[in-house]
Amino acid sequence: MAHLLSASCPLNISSCSKNSPNSLKKCFSSLPTSLTLQTSVKSFKTLPLNRKNAHKLLSVRATTLQQPTAKTGSGSDQTSGQESRPTRVMVIGGDGYCGWATSLHLSNKNYEVAIVDNLVRRHFDHQLGLDSLTPISSIHDRIRRWRSLTEKDISLYIGDVCDFEFLAEAFTSFKPDAVVHFGEQRSAPYSMIDRSRAVYTQQNNVLGTLNVLFAIKEFSEDCHLVKLGTMGEYGTPNIDIEEGYITITHNGRTDTLPYPKQASSFYHLSKVHDSNNIAFTCKAWGIRATDLNQGVVYGVRTDETAMHEELCNRFDYDGVFGTALNRFCVQAAVGHPLTVYGKGGQTRGYLDIRDTVQCVELAIATPAKRGEMRVFNQFTEQFSVNQLASLVTKAGEKLGIEVKTISVPNPRVEAEEHYYNAKHTKLIELGLEPHLLSDSLLDSLLNVAVQFKDRVDSKQIMPSVSWRKIGVKPKTVSA
Amino acid sequence: MAHLLSASCPLNISSCSKNSPNSLKKCFSSLPTSLTLQTSVKSFKTLPLNRKNAHKLLSVRATTLQQPTAKTGSGSDQTSGQESRPTRVMVIGGDGYCGWATSLHLSNKNYEVAIVDNLVRRHFDHQLGLDSLTPISSIHDRIRRWRSLTEKDISLYIGDVCDFEFLAEAFTSFKPDAVVHFGEQRSAPYSMIDRSRAVYTQQNNVLGTLNVLFAIKEFSEDCHLVKLGTMGEYGTPNIDIEEGYITITHNGRTDTLPYPKQASSFYHLSKVHDSNNIAFTCKAWGIRATDLNQGVVYGVRTDETAMHEELCNRFDYDGVFGTALNRFCVQAAVGHPLTVYGKGGQTRGYLDIRDTVQCVELAIATPAKRGEMRVFNQFTEQFSVNQLASLVTKAGEKLGIEVKTISVPNPRVEAEEHYYNAKHTKLIELGLEPHLLSDSLLDSLLNVAVQFKDRVDSKQIMPSVSWRKIGVKPKTVSA
Repeated sequence: MAHLLSASCPLNISSCSKNSPNSLKKCFSSLPTSLTLQTSVKSFKTLPLNRKNAHKLLSVRATTLQQPTAKTGSGSDQTSGQESRPTRVMVIGGDGYCGWATSLHLSNKNYEVAIVDNLVRRHFDHQLGLDSLTPISSIHDRIRRWRSLTEKDISLYIGDVCDFEFLAEAFTSFKPDAVVHFGEQRSAPYSMIDRSRAVYTQQNNVLGTLNVLFAIKEFSEDCHLVKLGTMGEYGTPNIDIEEGYITITHNGRTDTLPYPKQASSFYHLSKVHDSNNIAFTCKAWGIRATDLNQGVVYGVRTDETAMHEELCNRFDYDGVFGTALNRFCVQAAVGHPLTVYGKGGQTRGYLDIRDTVQCVELAIATPAKRGEMRVFNQFTEQFSVNQLASLVTKAGEKLGIEVKTISVPNPRVEAEEHYYNAKHTKLIELGLEPHLLSDSLLDSLLNVAVQFKDRVDSKQIMPSVSWRKIGVKPKTVSA
Repeated sequence: MAHLLSASCPLNISSCSKNSPNSLKKCFSSLPTSLTLQTSVKSFKTLPLNRKNAHKLLSVRATTLQQPTAKTGSGSDQTSGQESRPTRVMVIGGDGYCGWATSLHLSNKNYEVAIVDNLVRRHFDHQLGLDSLTPISSIHDRIRRWRSLTEKDISLYIGDVCDFEFLAEAFTSFKPDAVVHFGEQRSAPYSMIDRSRAVYTQQNNVLGTLNVLFAIKEFSEDCHLVKLGTMGEYGTPNIDIEEGYITITHNGRTDTLPYPKQASSFYHLSKVHDSNNIAFTCKAWGIRATDLNQGVVYGVRTDETAMHEELCNRFDYDGVFGTALNRFCVQAAVGHPLTVYGKGGQTRGYLDIRDTVQCVELAIATPAKRGEMRVFNQFTEQFSVNQLASLVTKAGEKLGIEVKTISVPNPRVEAEEHYYNAKHTKLIELGLEPHLLSDSLLDSLLNVAVQFKDRVDSKQIMPSVSWRKIGVKPKTVSA
């Protein structure tokens, strides 16, 4: 697994600054210990180095020295009767697609936010020769821009949650009231590239989440875990999909049990493993957890990321990280036929990224009880792949783009025609106001794809990973 | 996790020989590459060392140079129409409690057997200051003794299945028709000692099994995986437990789905994760697999291990590795009260180790179909802990031993009174002839405990691991 980022060998992260990016980079690569960066003032301050711990992860924390001030708004704790203080939310994976949008949304709503990220998602792009359709800034520039626009601070802990020493330090330093955990390898095709990436995906996701559970138990027992799962955990059963649990009457007796899972990639399986581990710790340790079984997310703009080009979110369209609808919009924009895998009857739940950030906030605002493992199905509408292709075709017509659709051999092993009816009422009951695809398609998707179409690398559009052909040899990408 | 055997840092195993144990040990610890040992002749032969691979695991294979001759009997392939050849079975974890008994049983039935083991179970005993009640010989002496008694060879591959290079070498060298996979950390209390052992258990078990699945796909596509799961995967639902799958009618529609799982330790969870991973590879790659959800195993003697003291199996009675009934018998033998955890209404499936070896053979003899994930519940009788205590008390009376029972605070988080009715007909249908506890208790259990009672370390009898108190700091054992 040497060609991957090893969970047990955390990255030596280099940081950059608007003042002296290169000198700082040099400084980091030569110092085998911890630093604290101050990003909200002009000069950098390095803390005294502890030589005893020189073997440890080089972890970089970009934080401000100012203590957060109490603010009112949805992020404040209004229930204590004492003076309200902002709810402190740690967003693991806060530099990623959903994580970045969520971090800004929560910060905007006056939550006190810390991002924990090892930046490995950017590393995967480098290794696989991929790039976001939209240009994205470094996490350091993103956070600085956010502060300059809003005067809101976001703390930054760069490191790997699979490294427990790092995670423990982040927990004891930030003291979160809630942890939103997006920090997993999140692509099904990535997990099916080769053996080492399959193993990496399960190791990284399952052991990282175990560490988060132990950190909550040890350092912050009352902290609410908001964990991103996936609708893909359920597979496509021939009965209605409930939200996490199902009541079964069998041979005259009745019980409510975890809904049976039938995941269909090593990635989706890793989320099933997480759900099972979390459920156990809720029962055994009284952890409070919300498992958000999210559908396929589309769109790029949220209120906050639209505020400045340096806040722009990533937009993946490639065969590995691109979600179906984003990929179709890019294909339409560049005149490439929409690539429907197989018969196109595959039906899934979908949601706008503006609803992802709403859902996470709703989950945080009404935490699970101690010992409760709450499961919400987080999507707003169901579509088959053929329906998506048809919607994109019609939207293209309105923009004067002629869109064609082709069927390509399905690289996955999945039912291409099946029953699908998944419940998704619990988040609506908490107050979710969905953005529907029919409205978003032109605003947030196709126009963005057209705007950046010159950045499209058409080599990345076709599927390159086969569920059946995955082998044990490391797969490399040629230039 | 440095105080544990790291999955990514395979042991440098030393071997011993009846001729020159110390010189060989020195030889191994200084040679950073692979050897092949010949154990069936008097002199040792080392193969030329490949210096290119000097960084690799020091793997030790003790095999004979003679090719196996075709034999008739249950281990022979009678279906091909060509001259029959023995079915080749790789037993991963073949030095452990169930694995050793199974390896001898299969060898005795004329299967061609290879043991793959990293011997880490012996290492755990050293680290935790534990020892088997029965004295056990080294794996090398065991195999040599078996050969001298029966003229049957068992191949030996010492290494870690989490090391894919090692596993690939074992697969391509031995070419198994079936793989029996016992090679996992198999104690629930061990997985609940501390964070690093919890993480180790899931990493070792889940990633090891992933590697086995990839090895089958790559090197031996038709090979039948016989995987040891546990009845503990199901937990204690309030409805009947079926064998792996349950047919659910819900809102007017019906489907047969994986039986919901509610495991209650990081160990039991690792087996749930394995089951989910295996099910996916059966569907996606056409792997043929049998998942044996085994109950609690008791007893020590099988026909083969009883043949010579050097073949004797391990018998664990301690709070970490001792299974309930074995522990009760040792307690009775030394005059220690039987320690019932909590109310004692915890009900589970149990089986004699003589039935474990029968069940595995039955599964191998009638393999799963390509793409089939077959699940058998492998136990013969159900008992509550209180019923076990009562049976041991009565058996003690017959031997003139007065047995008392006490309730100790339950170190686990589990229901102490619950409904339990688990199906277990599929192995009976294949021909299993159960040994029942009422008959075995005196023969194979209490008398063995009495025979070796001078070896009992009474410090090891009480539970030392708490489900609720598990922490993040490595737990060490004082002398």
